[in-house]
Amino acid sequence: MTATTPPRYDVVAIGNAVVDVIASCDEELIDELQLNRGGMTLIDEARAEELYEAMPPARELSGGSAANTLAGLATLGLQCAFIGQVADDQLGKVFRHDMRATGIDFDTPARPGEPATGRVLIFVTPDGERTMNTFLGAGQFLPAAALDEELIASAAILYLEGYLWDPEEPRRAMRRAIAVARNAGRKIAFTASESFVIERHGDDFRSMIEEGIIDILFVNESELATLTGESAFEAGLAAVAGKVPVLVATRSEKGAVAIAHGERAEVAAVPVMKVVDTTGAGDQFAAGFLSGYVRGEPLTRCLKRGAICASEVISHYGPRPEADMLKLMEERL
Amino acid sequence: MTATTPPRYDVVAIGNAVVDVIASCDEELIDELQLNRGGMTLIDEARAEELYEAMPPARELSGGSAANTLAGLATLGLQCAFIGQVADDQLGKVFRHDMRATGIDFDTPARPGEPATGRVLIFVTPDGERTMNTFLGAGQFLPAAALDEELIASAAILYLEGYLWDPEEPRRAMRRAIAVARNAGRKIAFTASESFVIERHGDDFRSMIEEGIIDILFVNESELATLTGESAFEAGLAAVAGKVPVLVATRSEKGAVAIAHGERAEVAAVPVMKVVDTTGAGDQFAAGFLSGYVRGEPLTRCLKRGAICASEVISHYGPRPEADMLKLMEERL
Repeated sequence: MTATTPPRYDVVAIGNAVVDVIASCDEELIDELQLNRGGMTLIDEARAEELYEAMPPARELSGGSAANTLAGLATLGLQCAFIGQVADDQLGKVFRHDMRATGIDFDTPARPGEPATGRVLIFVTPDGERTMNTFLGAGQFLPAAALDEELIASAAILYLEGYLWDPEEPRRAMRRAIAVARNAGRKIAFTASESFVIERHGDDFRSMIEEGIIDILFVNESELATLTGESAFEAGLAAVAGKVPVLVATRSEKGAVAIAHGERAEVAAVPVMKVVDTTGAGDQFAAGFLSGYVRGEPLTRCLKRGAICASEVISHYGPRPEADMLKLMEERL
Repeated sequence: MTATTPPRYDVVAIGNAVVDVIASCDEELIDELQLNRGGMTLIDEARAEELYEAMPPARELSGGSAANTLAGLATLGLQCAFIGQVADDQLGKVFRHDMRATGIDFDTPARPGEPATGRVLIFVTPDGERTMNTFLGAGQFLPAAALDEELIASAAILYLEGYLWDPEEPRRAMRRAIAVARNAGRKIAFTASESFVIERHGDDFRSMIEEGIIDILFVNESELATLTGESAFEAGLAAVAGKVPVLVATRSEKGAVAIAHGERAEVAAVPVMKVVDTTGAGDQFAAGFLSGYVRGEPLTRCLKRGAICASEVISHYGPRPEADMLKLMEERL
């Protein structure tokens, strides 16, 4: 089905609504707490309290993968809306404030009672690598009923994060959202989020890809390997490229590759003075790429935008842009 | 009275227990919201909500003047304890976590029910100047009954902030704390906090000075003027110097002066690459100074420590040190 009305939003995203709790720490603490270095691990509230107890002093910043990408997109001037589940508590208010203050419409009602708004305990080692431990909190109960279907139908792109496939209610909500967007003739963008998600829900993702449901797919190197079973990067690309109209594969300091409608483009990583905190690098790459893509820019330019956004966010603590991104684009693109 | 037992803590502080909500903004927003640029303004919950609504995306970091100073002291290896009032809510837990994770003992029970834990909405302009708007929340109800008198008696220095003179219950608690510390033969350090506090409670402060209750007094240039009625800096110094054993007067980029037991020392400000956020500059100056003072170091060296600590904290967002301060002292002192 083709879109009948012009979209009101460039992108609507459904994602985890979490606050990042970010602390610097030494390598020893990662070992001592037996954390999954560089990865994202789902934890329950008891483990969250145990880890928080052991965590150095921290700073709190709103996070969530798709929410971070939206924040990047909004900063780049796109019209965005978010759907996600916070609790009716202080951190939920912080999350909502930060979304709205970035210019993003976010009206999903808060969920009363327990559990609290989700939070991600992020340990950042001196090399800038982030190790994430996520207590999903209220986010794991995002119900299909919370979807504003009119909103979803009114956005050119529906952006989804793989993280939401793990809890049952949001997974069902995602499927409903996909149906709504497709019925309205909109595009589906999907970020695989993390290898462990693919290990658990890869069959789902692969069948979505086979069925042509995903229009734009974001993966990093290890996610691509897990998704395709191909350990070699090029073999992984080849296994997926023909099945999605747009494939974007990021490789940290090795840059990124995009293959769209048979065309291939590559970009080097943008060097930074010092990697402070890699949290949000993939999210902001996606934001940069999409900001060019929705404007119909050439693939290489979309990738370059992604690399610029990633370089900005890893040069400071927190997963969302702090610089004037429009100005940065003018200077560096 | 002289101390009979050796102190268990170097410093115990009583102060506001608040979380800073810090956002970058342009000068226009300061005007538009009619904020008191560069100052600290007490606000009620309704105004806090109004300002938060208008605030750009923010980061949350634990704050509070005396609490920040303690965090600096603990980072420099001193034994510290804190007394302050949080509510039983998420921000209260954040504040307590950050204190304890810095190595500070903090056991004042949370206050159930409303109001929430205090927060300071801080707008940081491109020049790094911070404009603070404080909703004291639970902090305004710190009761004298919450004081751990044994704890107060067991610290070499009782550190108090002028901000707590404004609400009635904490003011009464401060007076009780002073009596306890003096009975135990301990020293009283006092930071005047802000000119508006002196405007309201200057008579109190002046009589404390006259009565010899304050052993170490921290003021900045404008506070000194308000306290003494002398607009000229030197005249202000002369008016107080003889009445407190140790006077420390900070002057932002013009450095600082200390006069102790008739001896005078001065220090220049330590230059920084870029002033990001001046929040906590005075608090960390006090921490650096005290860290030398408790070790009996020469006055100039105490001032130098203060200037180093202030330069570190203004080079990043947030009111507490992020660098390895012991290493920084080794390199720069």
